[in-house]
Amino acid sequence: MTYKLSELIKNLEAVTIKGDPDCLISGVCTIQHAQPGCIAFLTNSLYRQYLQTTQAAAVILTEADAVNCPVNAVISKNPHYTYAKIASFFEDQTKISPGIHSSAVVGSDCQLSPTAIIGANAVIGNHVSIASHVVIGPGTIIGNNVSIGESTQLDARVTIYANVKIGKRVHILSGAVIGSDGFGFANQKGSWHKVPQLGSVEIGDDVDIGANTTIDRGTVENTVIEEGVKLDNLIQVAHNVRIGAHTVIAGCVAIAGSAEIGKHCLIGGTAKIAGHVKIADQVILTGNTGVTKSITQPGMYSSGVKGAVPNLEFRKTNARIRRLDHLMQRVKTLEDLIERKK
Amino acid sequence: MTYKLSELIKNLEAVTIKGDPDCLISGVCTIQHAQPGCIAFLTNSLYRQYLQTTQAAAVILTEADAVNCPVNAVISKNPHYTYAKIASFFEDQTKISPGIHSSAVVGSDCQLSPTAIIGANAVIGNHVSIASHVVIGPGTIIGNNVSIGESTQLDARVTIYANVKIGKRVHILSGAVIGSDGFGFANQKGSWHKVPQLGSVEIGDDVDIGANTTIDRGTVENTVIEEGVKLDNLIQVAHNVRIGAHTVIAGCVAIAGSAEIGKHCLIGGTAKIAGHVKIADQVILTGNTGVTKSITQPGMYSSGVKGAVPNLEFRKTNARIRRLDHLMQRVKTLEDLIERKK
Amino acid sequence: MTYKLSELIKNLEAVTIKGDPDCLISGVCTIQHAQPGCIAFLTNSLYRQYLQTTQAAAVILTEADAVNCPVNAVISKNPHYTYAKIASFFEDQTKISPGIHSSAVVGSDCQLSPTAIIGANAVIGNHVSIASHVVIGPGTIIGNNVSIGESTQLDARVTIYANVKIGKRVHILSGAVIGSDGFGFANQKGSWHKVPQLGSVEIGDDVDIGANTTIDRGTVENTVIEEGVKLDNLIQVAHNVRIGAHTVIAGCVAIAGSAEIGKHCLIGGTAKIAGHVKIADQVILTGNTGVTKSITQPGMYSSGVKGAVPNLEFRKTNARIRRLDHLMQRVKTLEDLIERKK
Repeated sequence: MTYKLSELIKNLEAVTIKGDPDCLISGVCTIQHAQPGCIAFLTNSLYRQYLQTTQAAAVILTEADAVNCPVNAVISKNPHYTYAKIASFFEDQTKISPGIHSSAVVGSDCQLSPTAIIGANAVIGNHVSIASHVVIGPGTIIGNNVSIGESTQLDARVTIYANVKIGKRVHILSGAVIGSDGFGFANQKGSWHKVPQLGSVEIGDDVDIGANTTIDRGTVENTVIEEGVKLDNLIQVAHNVRIGAHTVIAGCVAIAGSAEIGKHCLIGGTAKIAGHVKIADQVILTGNTGVTKSITQPGMYSSGVKGAVPNLEFRKTNARIRRLDHLMQRVKTLEDLIERKK
Repeated sequence: MTYKLSELIKNLEAVTIKGDPDCLISGVCTIQHAQPGCIAFLTNSLYRQYLQTTQAAAVILTEADAVNCPVNAVISKNPHYTYAKIASFFEDQTKISPGIHSSAVVGSDCQLSPTAIIGANAVIGNHVSIASHVVIGPGTIIGNNVSIGESTQLDARVTIYANVKIGKRVHILSGAVIGSDGFGFANQKGSWHKVPQLGSVEIGDDVDIGANTTIDRGTVENTVIEEGVKLDNLIQVAHNVRIGAHTVIAGCVAIAGSAEIGKHCLIGGTAKIAGHVKIADQVILTGNTGVTKSITQPGMYSSGVKGAVPNLEFRKTNARIRRLDHLMQRVKTLEDLIERKK
Repeated sequence: MTYKLSELIKNLEAVTIKGDPDCLISGVCTIQHAQPGCIAFLTNSLYRQYLQTTQAAAVILTEADAVNCPVNAVISKNPHYTYAKIASFFEDQTKISPGIHSSAVVGSDCQLSPTAIIGANAVIGNHVSIASHVVIGPGTIIGNNVSIGESTQLDARVTIYANVKIGKRVHILSGAVIGSDGFGFANQKGSWHKVPQLGSVEIGDDVDIGANTTIDRGTVENTVIEEGVKLDNLIQVAHNVRIGAHTVIAGCVAIAGSAEIGKHCLIGGTAKIAGHVKIADQVILTGNTGVTKSITQPGMYSSGVKGAVPNLEFRKTNARIRRLDHLMQRVKTLEDLIERKK
C-alpha cells in the first residue's frame, strides 16, 4: 500500500508538512538506512547525524530539527507519537475469521462473543467470559472463571490461571503466565509448608504484558496491574504487588511480594524492587537500580556502582573499596597527629 | 463455606483461642483490609499498626501480639504456619475427574495411574510413568522415559524433557522447563561446537518450581534438586547444579553450572551464583547478592553497593569511587609530609 | 553401546592415545565420580586434584596433564572439543519417523519437507517453509510466513512469530519466544501508545537459543542474531539488537533495544547491556557486568562492587561509601591545615 504524505497525517492534530504533501510513502524506515519512498523519524539525538544524508522520502521530527531536514519534513511536537500513528498504516492487515478453531477445547458455561477468535489448540476452562473482538492465540490456556474484556489480544502460548480478570484492549505476548501461585511458604520444624494463595490477578484496560513475563496471584487479596501499564519481557511480578496506572517497566525487572509502585513511573530494565516497599507516583528508576526502602518523592533514583571498565581497573577499585576502612583509619590518625601539634 | 474458629484449629498443635471459639469464619483477609467474618494473620511487624482497628473476626498472632488484639485471637508460636493450615480450608475445592482428556496425546508403553488426570492437549512421550493422583495440566509436554511420583501436580504448559525423574507431591507452575540441554560449547578454531548433554534432572519429593523457571539437564551426571526445595519464578538453574534439601530460592535468581548450594539455605531474589562454587548449609543470601567464591560457613552474606538514592547523589558517589585511587594518593602525600616533619 | 578407545578418536585430528587403544568405553563420566569403563575429561584446573585417583577407564586431557594420568590418556590440544566429539557417540539415538503428527495443525500454502518431523499439537501458520530434516517439537507454534532452514530443531513449546527467518542447524529450546513485539510506546498526554513493530527477526546458521529466552522483532528493521551465536536460558534480546557471529551469551543476560554486540564476544551471566550501545568484537564481559556506554576495544570488562561478604561487613562498607564525601572533606581539611603550616 502507498499513501500520500497528507493522507498519513490527516487525523493527527498539530502536525504539519514542510515540503510536498503529495509525496508517496510506501513504508517506514530508519533514518540511517532509509530507502526511497519510505518515512523515517528522528527522536533520539544519537541519530541526528544521519539527517543530512538520509535517503528517506520524509522524516518526522520537531520544528527545531526540521530546519536541517533535506527532505520532506513532518513537523510534530511529539515525533515519536506521530510516528506511531503513521506506522500503523503499514501494519500487517491480515484478517483472521472470527470463531473457534476446531482443535481448540472449550469448557462448559462459557460466554464467548461470536466476534472472538479462539486459535488452534487453545484450551478454555469453564465459566469463562470472552468479550467481542478478543483474540486468543494458538496453544493459549485459560483457566476457569476468567473474564477477558473486549478487543484484548492474547498471543500464542499464554497461560491465564483461574479467576483472573483482564480488561479491554490488553495485549499479552507469548509465554506470559498470569495468576500462578504466589511464592509463600511457612517454615515449621525445618521444612516449608505451602501457604494457600487465594487471591487472583486484576489487569486493567490498555495494559501490555511482555513475553515470558510472570504475574503471580495474590495471597489473600488480588495482585493488581492498573490501566495503561506497560510491562516488557521476562518481568517477575510477585503476589500482592500493585502497579499504578500508566507505569512503564522495562525488561527483566523483578518485583517482590506486596510492593506497591505508583502511577506514571518509569522503571528501567533489570531494576529490582524489594518486598513491601512503596514507590511514589512519577518515580524514575534508572536501569538495574535496586529499591530496598520506600521512595516517597517523585524523581529519578539509582543505586550501585555503574559503568563497565577494563577488568584490571575494576579489580583495583574493588580492592580500594575493601580497604576503605583502612583508609578511614589513616585519615583519623593524620587528624589526631595534626590535632596534637596544634 | 463457613467454619467455627474451633473447627479451624482442631488439628493444630499448641494453638489456642482467646475469645469466642464458636465465632463463624467465612474466609481469609488481610489485617488492614479485613471484612467481617474473615480471619487475618499478623507475622510482619510492618502490619502491626493495623491490629487495633482491624475489622477481622479473628487474627492469628503470637502470644505477645495477642495482648493488643481487639478481636478474637488465635495464638500460635508460628502464626504463618498456622495461617497456612487454616487458609487451606478456603481453597478452591473444584474436583476434576481422573482420566485422560480426549485431546491429549499419549505415547507407547506408558504406565499411567487410573487416578491421574491428564489435561487437554497435553502430550506424553513413550515409557512414561505417572503415579496415582498426579495432575498433568493442559498443554504440558512430557518427554520419553520420564517418571512422576504420586500426588505431583504439573500446571498448564510445563515442559519436562526426556529422562527427568520427579518425586512425590512436587508442584511445577506454568511455563517451567525441566531438563533442557545445558549450555556447553567447546571452541575450535573460533566457532563453537555443542558438548552433548547426557545427564538429566532429578527432582526430590515436596519440591515447588515457579513459573517460567528453567532447570537444565546435566552434562554427564544429573542436575539435582533435593527434597523440599522451593524455587520461585524465572529462576535459571544451569547444568550440574545441586540444590540441597529445604533450600528456598526467590525469583529471578541465576545459578551457573556445577554450583552446589547447601541445605536449608535462603537465597534472596535476583541473587547470582557463579559456576563451580559451593555454598554451605544454612547460608542466607540477601537479595541481589552475587556469589563468586565458595561460602564455607553458615550465616548471612551480601554484596555490592545497595540502596536507591536520588540520581544526583548516585552520580556523586560513583564519581567519588572512580577517584578513590586519587584520594588514597592524597592521604599518602599527607602521611609523608607529616612523617618528614616529625 | 561400547567402543574401543581407538574408534572414538578415529576421525579426530591431532588426538593421540597414551595407553591401550583397544580399551573398551561404554559411556562418559566425570573425573571425580568415574566408573569403570567410562571416559572423563580434564579441562578445568579445579578438578585436577581428582586425576590421581580417578576410576575412569580413560581421561581426555592435555599433554601436560597426561604426565600425571594414571589411566589411559587421550591427549589433545583442545580436550573440551575432543570430549564433545567423543561424547556424541553416547547420545540418545532414538529416531522419530518423519512426518506430521495427526494432532498437529498446519496452515495453507506451506512447504514442508517430507523429511521434516512435526510434533504432536504443534501449530504451523500459513506460507511457512520448513526445510529437510527439521524437527518441530510438540506444542510448538509457528506463525505465518516463517522459514526454517535444514536440520534445525525446535524443541517442545517454542513460539516463532510471523515472518521470522531461521537458518540451518539452529537449535531452539523449550519456551523460547522469537519475534514478539518489541517494547515501544510513545507517550501522549500521560498515556502510552503502542509504536507498531514492523521488523522481524533473522537467525543465522548454527545458532543455539536457550529455554524461555525471548527475542523481540525489530521496530523497523530486523533484530539479527548472526551465525554461530549461542544464547543460554532466560535471556532478553530487545528489538533492533544485533548480535555478532560466534558470540556466546550466558544465562539471564538482558540486552536493551538497538544494542549492537560484536563478533566472538563472551558475555557472562546476568550481564546487562543498555540500549543503543555498541560493543566491539572480542569483548569479554564478566558475570553481572552492566554496560552503559559503548565499548570500542577488545578486552575484558567488568562493573560494580563484587564478591559476597558477611552481611555485617557489607553494611560497614556501604556505610563507608555513603560517607565518602565526608572522608574527602576531611582529607581536604588536613591538606589545608598542612598547607597553612608550611
